[in-house]
Amino acid sequence: MSIASLNPSAVLRDTGVVTIEDRPTPQPAPGEVLVAVGAVGICGSDVHYYEHGRIGDFVLRAPMVMGHESAGEVVAVGDGVDPSRAGQLVALEPGVPCKSCVQCLAGRYNLCPDMQFFATPPVDGSMAEYVTLDAAFAHPAPQGMTAEQAAMAEPVSVGVWASKKAGVTVGDRVLITGAGPVGLFAAQVARAYGASSVTLTDLSDYRLSVAKELGFAAQRADAPLGENAFDVFFECSGAAPAFKVGMRALDRNGRAVVVGMGSDELPLEVFAIQGKELTIQGVFRYRNCYPAALELIGRGAVNVAPVLTHRFALSEAEDALTLARREKNSLKAVVVP
Amino acid sequence: MSIASLNPSAVLRDTGVVTIEDRPTPQPAPGEVLVAVGAVGICGSDVHYYEHGRIGDFVLRAPMVMGHESAGEVVAVGDGVDPSRAGQLVALEPGVPCKSCVQCLAGRYNLCPDMQFFATPPVDGSMAEYVTLDAAFAHPAPQGMTAEQAAMAEPVSVGVWASKKAGVTVGDRVLITGAGPVGLFAAQVARAYGASSVTLTDLSDYRLSVAKELGFAAQRADAPLGENAFDVFFECSGAAPAFKVGMRALDRNGRAVVVGMGSDELPLEVFAIQGKELTIQGVFRYRNCYPAALELIGRGAVNVAPVLTHRFALSEAEDALTLARREKNSLKAVVVP
Amino acid sequence: MSIASLNPSAVLRDTGVVTIEDRPTPQPAPGEVLVAVGAVGICGSDVHYYEHGRIGDFVLRAPMVMGHESAGEVVAVGDGVDPSRAGQLVALEPGVPCKSCVQCLAGRYNLCPDMQFFATPPVDGSMAEYVTLDAAFAHPAPQGMTAEQAAMAEPVSVGVWASKKAGVTVGDRVLITGAGPVGLFAAQVARAYGASSVTLTDLSDYRLSVAKELGFAAQRADAPLGENAFDVFFECSGAAPAFKVGMRALDRNGRAVVVGMGSDELPLEVFAIQGKELTIQGVFRYRNCYPAALELIGRGAVNVAPVLTHRFALSEAEDALTLARREKNSLKAVVVP
Amino acid sequence: MSIASLNPSAVLRDTGVVTIEDRPTPQPAPGEVLVAVGAVGICGSDVHYYEHGRIGDFVLRAPMVMGHESAGEVVAVGDGVDPSRAGQLVALEPGVPCKSCVQCLAGRYNLCPDMQFFATPPVDGSMAEYVTLDAAFAHPAPQGMTAEQAAMAEPVSVGVWASKKAGVTVGDRVLITGAGPVGLFAAQVARAYGASSVTLTDLSDYRLSVAKELGFAAQRADAPLGENAFDVFFECSGAAPAFKVGMRALDRNGRAVVVGMGSDELPLEVFAIQGKELTIQGVFRYRNCYPAALELIGRGAVNVAPVLTHRFALSEAEDALTLARREKNSLKAVVVP
Repeated sequence: MSIASLNPSAVLRDTGVVTIEDRPTPQPAPGEVLVAVGAVGICGSDVHYYEHGRIGDFVLRAPMVMGHESAGEVVAVGDGVDPSRAGQLVALEPGVPCKSCVQCLAGRYNLCPDMQFFATPPVDGSMAEYVTLDAAFAHPAPQGMTAEQAAMAEPVSVGVWASKKAGVTVGDRVLITGAGPVGLFAAQVARAYGASSVTLTDLSDYRLSVAKELGFAAQRADAPLGENAFDVFFECSGAAPAFKVGMRALDRNGRAVVVGMGSDELPLEVFAIQGKELTIQGVFRYRNCYPAALELIGRGAVNVAPVLTHRFALSEAEDALTLARREKNSLKAVVVP
Repeated sequence: MSIASLNPSAVLRDTGVVTIEDRPTPQPAPGEVLVAVGAVGICGSDVHYYEHGRIGDFVLRAPMVMGHESAGEVVAVGDGVDPSRAGQLVALEPGVPCKSCVQCLAGRYNLCPDMQFFATPPVDGSMAEYVTLDAAFAHPAPQGMTAEQAAMAEPVSVGVWASKKAGVTVGDRVLITGAGPVGLFAAQVARAYGASSVTLTDLSDYRLSVAKELGFAAQRADAPLGENAFDVFFECSGAAPAFKVGMRALDRNGRAVVVGMGSDELPLEVFAIQGKELTIQGVFRYRNCYPAALELIGRGAVNVAPVLTHRFALSEAEDALTLARREKNSLKAVVVP
Repeated sequence: MSIASLNPSAVLRDTGVVTIEDRPTPQPAPGEVLVAVGAVGICGSDVHYYEHGRIGDFVLRAPMVMGHESAGEVVAVGDGVDPSRAGQLVALEPGVPCKSCVQCLAGRYNLCPDMQFFATPPVDGSMAEYVTLDAAFAHPAPQGMTAEQAAMAEPVSVGVWASKKAGVTVGDRVLITGAGPVGLFAAQVARAYGASSVTLTDLSDYRLSVAKELGFAAQRADAPLGENAFDVFFECSGAAPAFKVGMRALDRNGRAVVVGMGSDELPLEVFAIQGKELTIQGVFRYRNCYPAALELIGRGAVNVAPVLTHRFALSEAEDALTLARREKNSLKAVVVP
Repeated sequence: MSIASLNPSAVLRDTGVVTIEDRPTPQPAPGEVLVAVGAVGICGSDVHYYEHGRIGDFVLRAPMVMGHESAGEVVAVGDGVDPSRAGQLVALEPGVPCKSCVQCLAGRYNLCPDMQFFATPPVDGSMAEYVTLDAAFAHPAPQGMTAEQAAMAEPVSVGVWASKKAGVTVGDRVLITGAGPVGLFAAQVARAYGASSVTLTDLSDYRLSVAKELGFAAQRADAPLGENAFDVFFECSGAAPAFKVGMRALDRNGRAVVVGMGSDELPLEVFAIQGKELTIQGVFRYRNCYPAALELIGRGAVNVAPVLTHRFALSEAEDALTLARREKNSLKAVVVP
């Protein structure tokens, strides 16, 4: 594949302002690969930066290329990288850690304080024709996978990490509040980890219908759940009331994972966490999850098709970012450079 | 030891009304021991029942013998119990589960829905001359221990359970908010589990001085703690602000255990639990902790003396229950039948 | 269902001597159920007692009813048992522990030194028309299950326990040496726990063909396995060379579970266990596994049909016990009282 | 501190031939520190290379600087390293992994196939005046520590890793077969992790006397151990019979760690590992253990003095390597450049 010298990129210039700019195509440094991007999913965080220019302490202070759910083809390799990787379809794990701090050496690289993460200011993202990445974070996709599927390894990894953190296994009754893309992927992942049942809740009938189509129990978030009804609870909606409801529905020794963002503070009821000896874990992105995510997509255990509801060209990046606002019955948009 | 036929017992007749009644001395059923009680500690829950007649859903509906932190000498054994246990000093684990439900068979007997627990309505407690108990829950005390020390195996077990739940080990910097009896015991336990440092906070200068005397770092609860300063956090004060402060002070991958009761709801900050991937666990009493508690007291790793500040005869049970209200600079009262 | 007063039972009178005897039908004690047995599988240990009169320290010193892989219908309940259980199809977990020792209270009831286990001398087994059992160990079968399927919860539990011990999960490449009933069940269980691949080895082409039919990779035990090729290894053949081969085939950080019996001693190569930091665990029966086993059979994740190759009436119990000797291409016999 | 241009180094030229050579003093590469070595312990592996020219697949094919248990003062830093580290006393963790492979990213860097480890052919060791090392593997020693103490962080880390692998904690009765330097350090570490008791066995009365002096139970390796007498077993002698004896002495649910090298194959008795559900783990060096090792030495929980029986100048390196052969009552030699 010949490599163009210009690299059209979707750049967030300011709150609400995205432009397509021709940036120079980067060279892969030693240990890196150069990837021709084939697909980039739109995440809620992309929309949040677009709309507000910041997430917490991460503030857009200079123009930044967007996007971090991406996959593509290796078109060149840097020094020290196996040249036979050229031509490989790879899913791009968007965060590269320092590899040397206490967290990294302990295997918790997602907690590295010096993480460089696509499209988290000031690091540029991957919504462009070309992008370079540490070769160890460009994960080979299984045979026959499309770039779109491989790009979904990012949100699927969020689900994999939730299942790993909670230790989902055979016998577990899993509750997931929030049937958006992350909830729908996490549900499929939990099933692949052996869960005996998975129940999703949401306020959107559209989302509940997708959950049912995927074979899950699904009910409105305002309908009652039983007592002692679940062993595992993934909060994926970001809504504080959902957290409270889920904690109450957990059985003794239940495990909760806080996946969704949106509330500053969640109400933690002491009688529930103590009387049932619940465990709550927060998750921050994921670590060591891409291979499992790719495998699950590859073997069909996670079906990304019903979640990928809309597609846009790179030039339409702004339309992709505003889709959720315009179209209630949408789940995830993909930009195809 | 001859066994009296009358069994003077401290009975909570109604909110704020404790009387000493002569009840018949019980016979040990098969599998049980009869114990001549040597010491009974006063716990915050005893005081709460005395003052309010209830804790949550547990409501005093009939007169109930108080007390659950107890030890004494085996004076008779029921069928099937090794007769050589007579004369043994035993610490009385106050909760006997059904042993057959899912929780019991999985080893989580403290979560048994049919638990019979001393002095939790309607089950009588052990503040009496004699009490019977399942032999498996009457734990032999190490040589040379006093009944008073053995009785403290109960609150020390709360600390053991917190350390086990959090997996306290060498290298851990431990924060404990609340330097009451439970906090002071939990601190000593954490040190015995290998903790590199233990810091206690409280609003009482008296309690802080006891903490310092025991060799711990101690500071006022309203003084600032560093960032990323602790690996483990035991909330032992029951105060909601302490929970928030402690969660913020935890380092990445930190583990919190909610030990203290008092707040209905704790404020769980999402940026903390997610960004640092914290784990929070609630504890409900303890399980399989008495042997370790007794060992730690026996080898001097846990020194109960500075915590046992006041002693009362059985006839003075009501004075023991009102001590905390009358005497600010007190920690724990023991009733000696 | 009316209950007969006579209880025809398959009794091992001496090595190689099985007779059908009319014993009195037992009454359920408090906490027990009386079960009309519907199916009893033949296990290698049954055959071993029949042929040798002993397994290790367990020696047949008096006539003993055989059988421990059983299921049937509840026909009466003892005091304290929910009467509505009558009519229920239950799988009989064959070992009832003391429930009060250190191992039991810690949830490790399979290690209870006072375990009473069907058909382990001197405890009678369940190859009879009727048998009584602790109600907590008579596990309700899912709707629509046959007694034969439910009886297989016993050997399937062996597989469940192996997967739980090894922590089999998504991403694991699992090797199982020995494609007998236990290996074939363990393989299906591992797949249900999320294993990425399962490979079985055996010396019998017949058994390998059943493995393939069930969708697994299968190869002769004397064919080479790759290096660093597996994450998990279940030794289910009892053959010492298989253990050595499997340990060599494990990848770094691999986990081995010793399931098969047959060798007194296995050769543990130090360079393998150290250089790759392998973990080896032995299993003794199972604990807390019946509900998962029943669920997996019920949802079709474990298909017992290809393993249940032969059926016998109670009067033909001896034919069932000698089947393996007579018929090379057999897997498991079931006796139907 | 001024840096000499020549770097006297103890070089193993061939089996049984050590010479002191003036090599050029190295420059720290980016991310590295240059350390003036203060102490280097002699390990059994050093002696093995000296005597046999190989350990397993690692064969001496070219002259190699010896030594890997070392500490010293930072005298220069490479690009990207905090210059204020100059002057720091550091313990040198001798193995630097690739940081990018599956094992490294999962935190299991000691299993990295591309590990560069001091004095493992063909990598030079640290028995020299100066050595460079990745700054992340040069661990700051606590205040007041000597270089000799800090150098012992290496074998102490072996003990830390054994305790971490086995999860040694309060209540554990620990058996250690082999009271050499590793056994004596591992025993002290286990005590610091909370072990209730530690028993060492050896055939050398001298070593047993050192064990006793350090406060441990100690007995001859040929004296009987009880049954079900230990919860944790560290095999540190490398002797196959010791492994068998230790496995038999473990209680139900016991955990064994194979630390010692020396036997090619260990006899694994099936009745023991299955009937008691034992776990065996092999260890390969250690990972993420240096901070704990340094802490334990620093707070006096591990006393290295009784183990450091002999000291040599760099010019006497060969005497240090032959000490064990000449002097039966020796434990560990230290070379002081």
